Amino acid sequence: MAIRRLCVIGVGLIGGSLARALRAAGACGELVGAGRSRATLEQARDLGVIDRFDTDIAKAAAGADMVVVAAPLGATAGVFRALRGHLAAGAVLTDVGSAKRVILTAAREAFGRLPENLVPGHPIAGTERSGVAASFASLFEGHRVILTPVAETDAGAVARVRAMWEAVGSEVLTMDPDRHDAVLAATSHLPHVLAYVLVDVLGRMEERQEIFRYAAGGFRDFTRIASSDPQMWHDICIANRDAIVQALEHFDGELEKAIELIRRGDSEGIRALLARAKTLRDRYAQGR
Amino acid sequence: MAIRRLCVIGVGLIGGSLARALRAAGACGELVGAGRSRATLEQARDLGVIDRFDTDIAKAAAGADMVVVAAPLGATAGVFRALRGHLAAGAVLTDVGSAKRVILTAAREAFGRLPENLVPGHPIAGTERSGVAASFASLFEGHRVILTPVAETDAGAVARVRAMWEAVGSEVLTMDPDRHDAVLAATSHLPHVLAYVLVDVLGRMEERQEIFRYAAGGFRDFTRIASSDPQMWHDICIANRDAIVQALEHFDGELEKAIELIRRGDSEGIRALLARAKTLRDRYAQGR
Repeated sequence: MAIRRLCVIGVGLIGGSLARALRAAGACGELVGAGRSRATLEQARDLGVIDRFDTDIAKAAAGADMVVVAAPLGATAGVFRALRGHLAAGAVLTDVGSAKRVILTAAREAFGRLPENLVPGHPIAGTERSGVAASFASLFEGHRVILTPVAETDAGAVARVRAMWEAVGSEVLTMDPDRHDAVLAATSHLPHVLAYVLVDVLGRMEERQEIFRYAAGGFRDFTRIASSDPQMWHDICIANRDAIVQALEHFDGELEKAIELIRRGDSEGIRALLARAKTLRDRYAQGR
Repeated sequence: MAIRRLCVIGVGLIGGSLARALRAAGACGELVGAGRSRATLEQARDLGVIDRFDTDIAKAAAGADMVVVAAPLGATAGVFRALRGHLAAGAVLTDVGSAKRVILTAAREAFGRLPENLVPGHPIAGTERSGVAASFASLFEGHRVILTPVAETDAGAVARVRAMWEAVGSEVLTMDPDRHDAVLAATSHLPHVLAYVLVDVLGRMEERQEIFRYAAGGFRDFTRIASSDPQMWHDICIANRDAIVQALEHFDGELEKAIELIRRGDSEGIRALLARAKTLRDRYAQGR
């Protein structure tokens, strides 16, 4: 058994799916849940996602050899403080947050130094749904997981977290935390903010009724991510603020150039922009 | 037979799908194709989408009781000029363009006045693919078609175009042309421009390789529309320029407010924006 006892703190879509997947893979002995909401934990237990739970994080983590923080990003600092002095000897601590510099900062503050057994991680997987009821065992199959170890991180701890994600079908890569935050700001956080702002803008227009009435399939796909959990995305906007603002400002500058092209009716400029983007998007869709 | 002989000018995704759908519904006798590319028309005939074709638009339209212009928006003015004096008595002329004011302007210029048998139309259906090979008979089923007749338009002509679209399973509505252009700019043209600009921006970033490598499902859906035909979207940007620029500028202003919220780390402001958008998007997805 790769993991004897796993403690998952925050049994939602990601934490619940990881528990289900490890169980399905036979890669984990006991599964202990922790979190703030007793109702959620009872639901997770009744669904068979976890074996038992404790709303006291320190008690839930006691004796676990792998502790996965899958709580909202905004709650991570508090979780780390609650764990201080309660991790078993040799236990590995990891997380699933969408921003990684903030995890290192929170850990340094909570533990007084950067623990060598902390391996920050981020599975690039999810749906616009949330909660343990939406969790499923195959969520991570074929998806990438980015680990962002730093100089202090123990290589053995990295290997154990890598093995955990590989057991559930993920491809594991490592990346510098700041680079992770910049890349994810561009590829994930930026589109989410654009989708949220677009839906909000349309919803406050005079023609609001007609706008949503005549929206076609393209609009549905484009805005699907605006149905994601607002609390989660609030936390990401706060946690990865600097990289997100930088990505948004860069986008905004380019958008203004595009508006100018259209205002001028610059056929060649418009055609060049659209053709470049289509070529890239097609190449991306084909996995090249 | 509702339509004795239909002439479809531009046998691509939309024109080809309409021909297939009318044939499948038994709502049309002879199907005649027209267009600039002989190869495309031969392919359409070989696929059974049309019965015969002529690269001479006037000849193709001769004797047709329904003429549908499904050519690129930028080619519509030229098509109207080619049709002048060649439509059969009692023939109805319609189009499928994504912008409607420009169609009325082009018709007025080509015919010297606004023909009473012209019924501008816009099926709210499509995919990011294009060309007759991508056409299919069920494309319009359950989709809306907006007709934008004006004071000069003959009510009988409107009724015949309405019947054509209803025969292929569409719900037909009428709207003022300028309102159509404003609503579609917001709901369709704006998201397309955003998706194209986003992909272009990411493609020119230093981290380009990693960005596309770590893009997840949300990004794939968000940018799907950037795989649409650049020529078609170029034409839409030119044809509906005023409404698109207005929608883009409005969006840009709101985006800058959102950037400011995130820069300030304004938790309440961010949370309110995301929550408003999620509520609207969920309501839209549920068809309410």
